[in-house]
Amino acid sequence: MIVITPKPPYYAVIFSTLRTDIDEGYIETAHRMETLAQKQKGYLRIESVRNEFGITVSYWKSLEAIQRWKNNIEHTLARKKGKELWYKKYQLRICKVEYDYGFEK
Amino acid sequence: MIVITPKPPYYAVIFSTLRTDIDEGYIETAHRMETLAQKQKGYLRIESVRNEFGITVSYWKSLEAIQRWKNNIEHTLARKKGKELWYKKYQLRICKVEYDYGFEK
Repeated sequence: MIVITPKPPYYAVIFSTLRTDIDEGYIETAHRMETLAQKQKGYLRIESVRNEFGITVSYWKSLEAIQRWKNNIEHTLARKKGKELWYKKYQLRICKVEYDYGFEK
Repeated sequence: MIVITPKPPYYAVIFSTLRTDIDEGYIETAHRMETLAQKQKGYLRIESVRNEFGITVSYWKSLEAIQRWKNNIEHTLARKKGKELWYKKYQLRICKVEYDYGFEK
């Protein structure tokens, strides 16, 4: 999904992943984390494309909002399970969005 | 693919796309643009996941490198064809990567 975000500056968390072949609990937890993230103060939107590799980008109003989400207890437990079970490898990048531009037919 | 990038700060271009059903020339041009981008000064790496939606993130040393790539003539022509043929909708975001973190089993 392509989402509309407010005028920059705002923040993006780029989460690039390579999955293991363990599916147990993965989809449920991914959906639960999306639902939970939406309830956080400062959350904007999320974009995600997945096959074996995945890129999920979540957008936030501020670095403080990202930090609070990182410290959320349920999210912390989900990240722990992610390392144990679902991900072979990932890279996470926290960025300040400075410019954006959209096109639609 | 998950790529390794240098220590922040560096820059990311997040390109979120929704394709049309026109495939003619798309894959060839996407590959050509990756090859051409790799030859640009200040280019770092690229990550891409595509199905109907796509997220491609290219990483660059500086905003100037991104601007030069935007002004590249062959890239400009490819973007024009992208709007005419291959994309229903896209969103492009230019970001400064401030922190990153990796995990590998």
